[in-house]
Amino acid sequence: MDTTALEKTVLEIVHALPPGRVVTDPALLASYARDEAEGAPYSVPAAVVRPHGTAEVAAVVSSCAERGVTVVARGAGTGLSGGANAVPGCVVVSFEAMNGILSIDPDERVAVVQPGVINDGLRDACAQRGLWYPPDPASSPWSTIGGNVATNAGGVCCVKYGVTRDYVLALEAVVGRGEVVRLGHRTAKSSAGYELASLMVGSEGTLGLITEITLRLRGARSPERTVLGYFDDLAAAGRAVAAVTASGVVPSALELVDRYCLQAVDEWKNMGLADGGNVLLLARTDAPGTAGAEEADTVLRAFRSAGATSSAQSSDETEAEALFAARRLVYPALERLGSVLTEDVCVPRMRVPDMLGRIERIAGDRGVRIAGLAHAGDGNLHPMVVVARGDEDGRRRGHEALAEIVDEAIVMGGTVTGEHGVGLLKMRGLADELGPAALDLHRRVKHAMDPAGIFNPGKVFAP
Amino acid sequence: MDTTALEKTVLEIVHALPPGRVVTDPALLASYARDEAEGAPYSVPAAVVRPHGTAEVAAVVSSCAERGVTVVARGAGTGLSGGANAVPGCVVVSFEAMNGILSIDPDERVAVVQPGVINDGLRDACAQRGLWYPPDPASSPWSTIGGNVATNAGGVCCVKYGVTRDYVLALEAVVGRGEVVRLGHRTAKSSAGYELASLMVGSEGTLGLITEITLRLRGARSPERTVLGYFDDLAAAGRAVAAVTASGVVPSALELVDRYCLQAVDEWKNMGLADGGNVLLLARTDAPGTAGAEEADTVLRAFRSAGATSSAQSSDETEAEALFAARRLVYPALERLGSVLTEDVCVPRMRVPDMLGRIERIAGDRGVRIAGLAHAGDGNLHPMVVVARGDEDGRRRGHEALAEIVDEAIVMGGTVTGEHGVGLLKMRGLADELGPAALDLHRRVKHAMDPAGIFNPGKVFAP
Repeated sequence: MDTTALEKTVLEIVHALPPGRVVTDPALLASYARDEAEGAPYSVPAAVVRPHGTAEVAAVVSSCAERGVTVVARGAGTGLSGGANAVPGCVVVSFEAMNGILSIDPDERVAVVQPGVINDGLRDACAQRGLWYPPDPASSPWSTIGGNVATNAGGVCCVKYGVTRDYVLALEAVVGRGEVVRLGHRTAKSSAGYELASLMVGSEGTLGLITEITLRLRGARSPERTVLGYFDDLAAAGRAVAAVTASGVVPSALELVDRYCLQAVDEWKNMGLADGGNVLLLARTDAPGTAGAEEADTVLRAFRSAGATSSAQSSDETEAEALFAARRLVYPALERLGSVLTEDVCVPRMRVPDMLGRIERIAGDRGVRIAGLAHAGDGNLHPMVVVARGDEDGRRRGHEALAEIVDEAIVMGGTVTGEHGVGLLKMRGLADELGPAALDLHRRVKHAMDPAGIFNPGKVFAP
Repeated sequence: MDTTALEKTVLEIVHALPPGRVVTDPALLASYARDEAEGAPYSVPAAVVRPHGTAEVAAVVSSCAERGVTVVARGAGTGLSGGANAVPGCVVVSFEAMNGILSIDPDERVAVVQPGVINDGLRDACAQRGLWYPPDPASSPWSTIGGNVATNAGGVCCVKYGVTRDYVLALEAVVGRGEVVRLGHRTAKSSAGYELASLMVGSEGTLGLITEITLRLRGARSPERTVLGYFDDLAAAGRAVAAVTASGVVPSALELVDRYCLQAVDEWKNMGLADGGNVLLLARTDAPGTAGAEEADTVLRAFRSAGATSSAQSSDETEAEALFAARRLVYPALERLGSVLTEDVCVPRMRVPDMLGRIERIAGDRGVRIAGLAHAGDGNLHPMVVVARGDEDGRRRGHEALAEIVDEAIVMGGTVTGEHGVGLLKMRGLADELGPAALDLHRRVKHAMDPAGIFNPGKVFAP
């Protein structure tokens, strides 16, 4: 990077935008250097811009494109793959000030939001109107819809209701050298042209900057029923997951939490979760009326047939809600114990028992302890290695174990990232998963959308 | 086109493929010249290739790319926009021989098919295993999954269950200069790289040739309940549609058929459909158990509140099935009366009453009679003008009326094609809908995926 060009670009942006938009204070810049990925490289950005609207974003992109300055988009920085990490000599565009809910239309079941709106904030606003925005990543209290869209975020609901991409109808984005485009459609159907809105979803800031998002909503759903089961080991829990899948019931949640995770939460919140057994499965159904009761019974039978040591339909939804809240606390609870190396593989549903078995074997082979957390119903597993800070040998072995898990997932017909995105940490895995021809197509599409090569280069795949 | 290059290419393909794959008999070639679009230009292809596998498709593309010969993909030729129409000097690749169902996995709820399999054939095979492939275009007895994917086909079920794109997990395709790529994923979730499988869906053969499709399936659903209502005019029926939408019920079908269409079917099949009233709404719910009964009641109340002249929950599902079968016969019934100019606009759901009103006004202004058929629940309207063969003035006025309807749809925030695709007939509308910046992105993506410029050029948008 030519320093003079970078300085000129930042100065030009400062002059083009209203006062206060551009951060160059080194102490503040450092707080925009990285997301929550453990072990991904990052730099301090040359400047951070906090635009207040699309025209300001376009001005930033136009200035950067002119001199080839890199632009890195940032939501709340809760990503786990390094997608928002600053690269040397870049301008970070933080969407924190573009956080408005522009409209919620109960009849059309459509919301229009700016990218910086917090997921839970949108979900609450929808709930007040009898509507529901399903995607619910564990980061939902902090993460932004823009970041969710950039990574195609998932969550607990995906097993029945799909991922972020399934809810993005249309986007406004700044692409190329600062052109503002509207992609997608607001209607229930369209066969008009290429599905470029879906292409932007999950592209992790490499194809442009998303400035407005039109989301599909659902009506509020029936109250959920919760079934929980404890199992002696992962093998039994895996069999229960496969039995639920094979029963034909599509639960509205099917989560797996192992003893390691349960204990980490217990040590922090003193909930006694690990007293119940070694591996906890949490299932839910939101089928209405008697159908819900039947589904809950089916799930309970599947748990018991797989050898649950205890199982029950929760009679108290407040208690059930607390269990799901505890599940969302697993990641921060583990972070209290050390650095958390996290994985995000997704395998075909019926391979979950296999994959859990292989993870146990890999942990033994590598001499690491792997915490087990999974959106088990959709095959999305989050094996995690907690490394004491400073234990470089443990960190190395942890990374080796997770790399082996990624390889196994690919062999099983799975994917290297179910919901976190590729960022920097999954680039090798993605190249293996795609193969050279599909990877080459990615490069060609990237170049078509980003001819100046300025949008988050070096992320997702090597240039 | 250089004739010698074209002849050399065809000869090369003849030699590269097993005997019988290449058609050059002029009488047979003519039957591959066009789809069912009324009024779209077409040519007789230079050759038709009927490959038996991916390697043969790759060989064809490779030969064509080398000398810049155009390749036009073809399923069953039931398209209504001219997307499969042969262009001068092209090779048509017909997928009629690649019609296998390669696997259906009841546990993973995934089917893998070749592009030439007939929609109803797949749906029947799924039903035999307790599974359901929802997309159900009216052409389902004849149209192929490959063609459905190419146009992102819809159908009656879309109002609740989405369109073809929502069911495509992964694709194998021949792109570029003959490279075979696998795009997408077989798992329930993935954030691994760009969503190029979805990009191929609805691209109408302009980005490559699809050779294998991995589809998401659903479990067989509960038996449907049918509610039907007759209304005096389109305005009342439109109000009923809006009332159903506003009630929060998402019906599994909500179809509108007007008197013109009902009479056309009556004249052919003598069903007495038009005796019941002027405009028929057909609604269904597949919610299980008591929830289904409640939804049916809600729909019935919505119909009555909007002024239905008669309405009832059908007590006989065989009779209800006959009504839906009659709805599928509307298009061929109208074709018996003359050339059918058909439209496919989709507007935001709550704008359906407005749009129906505007269509009536346009029909009056232009002095044409417009038949009304609609997937009303998702805002997808199929106004049709029947023109006596040879009535060139009627045809001109019909096209003018439909063009005006397209303009109105765009103004309402709608789209120029809900499920038929752009092909040749909707190109002007697409350009108006997208605007120059988004259209330019389309061109750049097309060039990235098809650097030789051989895949169905001149369709969807001008090169």
